[in-house]
Amino acid sequence: MAARTKSKYHFALAIHGGAGTLPRAQMQPQREARYRTGLERALRAGYDVLHTGGSSIDAVTAAVVVLEDDPLFNAGRGAVLNEAGAHELDASIMDGATLRAGAVAAARRIRNPVLAARAVMEKSPHVMLAGAGADAFARKKGLELVTPDYFTTRQRLVSLELALLRKRGRLSSKATAAEKHGTVGAVALDSVGNLAAATSTGGFTNKMAGRVGDTSIIGAGTYANNETCAVSGTGDGEFFIRGVLGHNVSARMRYLHESVSAAARAALAEVAALGGLGGLIAVDRRGRIAMPFTTEGMYRGHVLGNGKVVVSIFR
Amino acid sequence: MAARTKSKYHFALAIHGGAGTLPRAQMQPQREARYRTGLERALRAGYDVLHTGGSSIDAVTAAVVVLEDDPLFNAGRGAVLNEAGAHELDASIMDGATLRAGAVAAARRIRNPVLAARAVMEKSPHVMLAGAGADAFARKKGLELVTPDYFTTRQRLVSLELALLRKRGRLSSKATAAEKHGTVGAVALDSVGNLAAATSTGGFTNKMAGRVGDTSIIGAGTYANNETCAVSGTGDGEFFIRGVLGHNVSARMRYLHESVSAAARAALAEVAALGGLGGLIAVDRRGRIAMPFTTEGMYRGHVLGNGKVVVSIFR
Repeated sequence: MAARTKSKYHFALAIHGGAGTLPRAQMQPQREARYRTGLERALRAGYDVLHTGGSSIDAVTAAVVVLEDDPLFNAGRGAVLNEAGAHELDASIMDGATLRAGAVAAARRIRNPVLAARAVMEKSPHVMLAGAGADAFARKKGLELVTPDYFTTRQRLVSLELALLRKRGRLSSKATAAEKHGTVGAVALDSVGNLAAATSTGGFTNKMAGRVGDTSIIGAGTYANNETCAVSGTGDGEFFIRGVLGHNVSARMRYLHESVSAAARAALAEVAALGGLGGLIAVDRRGRIAMPFTTEGMYRGHVLGNGKVVVSIFR
Repeated sequence: MAARTKSKYHFALAIHGGAGTLPRAQMQPQREARYRTGLERALRAGYDVLHTGGSSIDAVTAAVVVLEDDPLFNAGRGAVLNEAGAHELDASIMDGATLRAGAVAAARRIRNPVLAARAVMEKSPHVMLAGAGADAFARKKGLELVTPDYFTTRQRLVSLELALLRKRGRLSSKATAAEKHGTVGAVALDSVGNLAAATSTGGFTNKMAGRVGDTSIIGAGTYANNETCAVSGTGDGEFFIRGVLGHNVSARMRYLHESVSAAARAALAEVAALGGLGGLIAVDRRGRIAMPFTTEGMYRGHVLGNGKVVVSIFR
């Protein structure tokens, strides 16, 4: 899982579309192709920024916007529904050069939550805005708002129905990872050595109203620091918060001098010891990428300075 | 600032009432006496739990409830008002034995937000609930809800008026730390060696609607881990989030083997380097207490197994 850039442009980008993949047995070739295409498009969007000398913060923003707009992934359009049948969207972003950060939580109307997280970072005195305050801020900053049905897909409606049937004891099969959750995220190193990370999600199906997961939490689902790495997580968010996953990867690199892949694996193992599964993507300041996961699969991909796009789903 | 318990009961409790103290010059003896009394009452409430063999999680809960109920401090009753003239309350709690945690953010109706944070930890599958979802959950769990005017005090109304005058350029004096913010928190070690931390706040005067600060963020304003320490922060919350303050204290102890006081000072210095002021209280698993701050003062106090209560405001 480690790679190093070798081209003229010393940069790297990794993305994920969540550790909540379909079980391998259910992944028909046609469906797999659609996921792969979605990941490739996001990687291309980020690559285009980095390849032309753009910043890592712009690259992760561009990649996450593509994934938010793609109904296959649980973020923006295609987000899951909570117990009330509503979409509540979480996102955050962090700039490793300045340690500036922004986040929105439980937003309901913002088409691209990652753009709102970035606006919080750049255009407010705050790091995190929740609920109606986040929506109102996004509107004030000229971001596109949509009616909630924009986010809704047939697949997510079915997942909520299944979850409610399970709750009432009318369905004995367990929820698949794909039915429950999913997240999208990106981490990047740009050609001037700056790291950035961004993450966005609809949370998980049938979550309580107002639930905020690790995706909105700087230090948990998202963290970036030029001294160490950029991290974006996906998985059982409550456990990622308790394990302070993103900052733990960074702290292990900074204080124990672990490599990004050793630190990422160790931090994920600590979360697993608490009972939480998932994955993360991380990139260090030399462009080394780690993408460990403890689930059956994780939609993921990366691209380095040579422009070669690699996407994977299972091990 | 380091102390060690020497009594039969090997336990320790430290609390803070925020780094947003009145300037020393404005602190009349009568007023100071009221703050000291409030801190002592909170310490006694926590001490009573620990002294009778109770748990650290019960002790920090008890101490924070007293401070939330005291209108002098910016949490619960006495909370500041946001830009919309509303109270939005943040709180979190963490159990160092299990790394379980709970938080509420931007709650508007819960009399004691720390009790709601604890209910999230113990009675929900989630770690964090925001906004109306937090209020609805608290109601469902039988916690006391109040009308928003319960929280309002004359002092906070004046602070908001002053802040709005400043915004319109009609007042040239700068806001004092006391006018802007404040927080309450507690950290404890109990007689069986478990650590816990809890924090609660109204945020800061004239904050944007929906703003969530470090007080709700596990790893930032609140963190506890039996391996290292329990931490509760108070100060410029946005900077505490970016510095992942609580987890950073713990990580420095765990990975660098720093003492609690060295780690606390270093983590606070990192936040100061970003531009953020404030303070924190921390206790390690041997009952050593650190209470550093970079502001003019911090309402604070501690009590050890011998029952001797010590409170301080300035250096």
